[in-house]
Amino acid sequence: MITLYGTPISGNAYKARLLLSLLGLEFEETVINLRTGENRTGSFLALNPRGQVPVLTDGEVTVWDSQAILVYLARRYGEAWLPVEPAAMAEVMQWLALAENELLFGLARARAAKVFGRDFDLASCQAYGHAGLKVLEQRLAEHPWLAAGKPTIADVACMPYAALSYMGDIPLDDYPAVRAWIDRVRALPGFIAMEGIRGRAAARATGVA
Amino acid sequence: MITLYGTPISGNAYKARLLLSLLGLEFEETVINLRTGENRTGSFLALNPRGQVPVLTDGEVTVWDSQAILVYLARRYGEAWLPVEPAAMAEVMQWLALAENELLFGLARARAAKVFGRDFDLASCQAYGHAGLKVLEQRLAEHPWLAAGKPTIADVACMPYAALSYMGDIPLDDYPAVRAWIDRVRALPGFIAMEGIRGRAAARATGVA
Repeated sequence: MITLYGTPISGNAYKARLLLSLLGLEFEETVINLRTGENRTGSFLALNPRGQVPVLTDGEVTVWDSQAILVYLARRYGEAWLPVEPAAMAEVMQWLALAENELLFGLARARAAKVFGRDFDLASCQAYGHAGLKVLEQRLAEHPWLAAGKPTIADVACMPYAALSYMGDIPLDDYPAVRAWIDRVRALPGFIAMEGIRGRAAARATGVA
Repeated sequence: MITLYGTPISGNAYKARLLLSLLGLEFEETVINLRTGENRTGSFLALNPRGQVPVLTDGEVTVWDSQAILVYLARRYGEAWLPVEPAAMAEVMQWLALAENELLFGLARARAAKVFGRDFDLASCQAYGHAGLKVLEQRLAEHPWLAAGKPTIADVACMPYAALSYMGDIPLDDYPAVRAWIDRVRALPGFIAMEGIRGRAAARATGVA
């Protein structure tokens, strides 16, 4: 049995949930209440010493960190999503790095500052997020997918916070190729929505749709 | 011919240089002058749209991002450094994620604020860095290497900014297992030093040695 420990508002947990769904895997999800500090209990820290969601368990295997979970699921259940040929795997890893840097510390932190009142400098998060979106736009203007000429975990890692960027007051007006790519990801068989990404009205209003 | 585009002061470029050396690979290094904006020229942006070092070229292959470079080199030239079995590869990826988060945005940014005058909040970088060091310490108190029971790219990715943490006024006094692990990495055949990590006097003074 696969169990995902996450929260509905976490874009990182959504990355794991999205790939599980795209792979057609059965799983159960345990919601961890971050407000009551459930991620700081001894039993949760035994799963993940960083005290963060998501965590995935699969029988005897425990994996923390969203990107490590994507790599695990692809290697075990969906090899097409992560090529192992050296140059192709490195290409996927490049975009995972963008997801962990400009997208997480830019787009996701801008959202956290705006929506959850986290103490991050909004302007610098927005600027860093735009830097990441520009790199995505340049790539996606010429390629339908980020790496390897097909959908991979690079797309799964990068799409969520790009699609949620409007929540950090980062509109996607200047990124038409990013918007079109978000729609391509949404059209993949097995796609599952996340609250905030799903909302068509919000999406239209912000140019995401 | 393998070419590494880096700078002497970049811990991320050092990660690539260190693995190249551990693998016994011949390479040449091109120094990119960040102060004169050499990383923002058209020719460099054609190699890396993010305008950052390191970049590695190997014949027709171009890889940007330090962690993507580590994955590329291991897959192509040193498979022992990155297992592909799902759980073992995910374990390596967990520590790469720590390197990109707590260590880069904590330890490395604290160093950048202190030494290079970058506009980062030193106290919050230091706190985030300590959070990463605590996770490393917990792991390394019970295991000689971060993942898979042997040296992997997880160690190569995490060691540099841990060893440089004293430059951001983050002493390693409370992390004896981290200090012992840094010494184990230094003792690996083919280890190559980075300025700042090499200095024995500085190391002794700060408890790194």
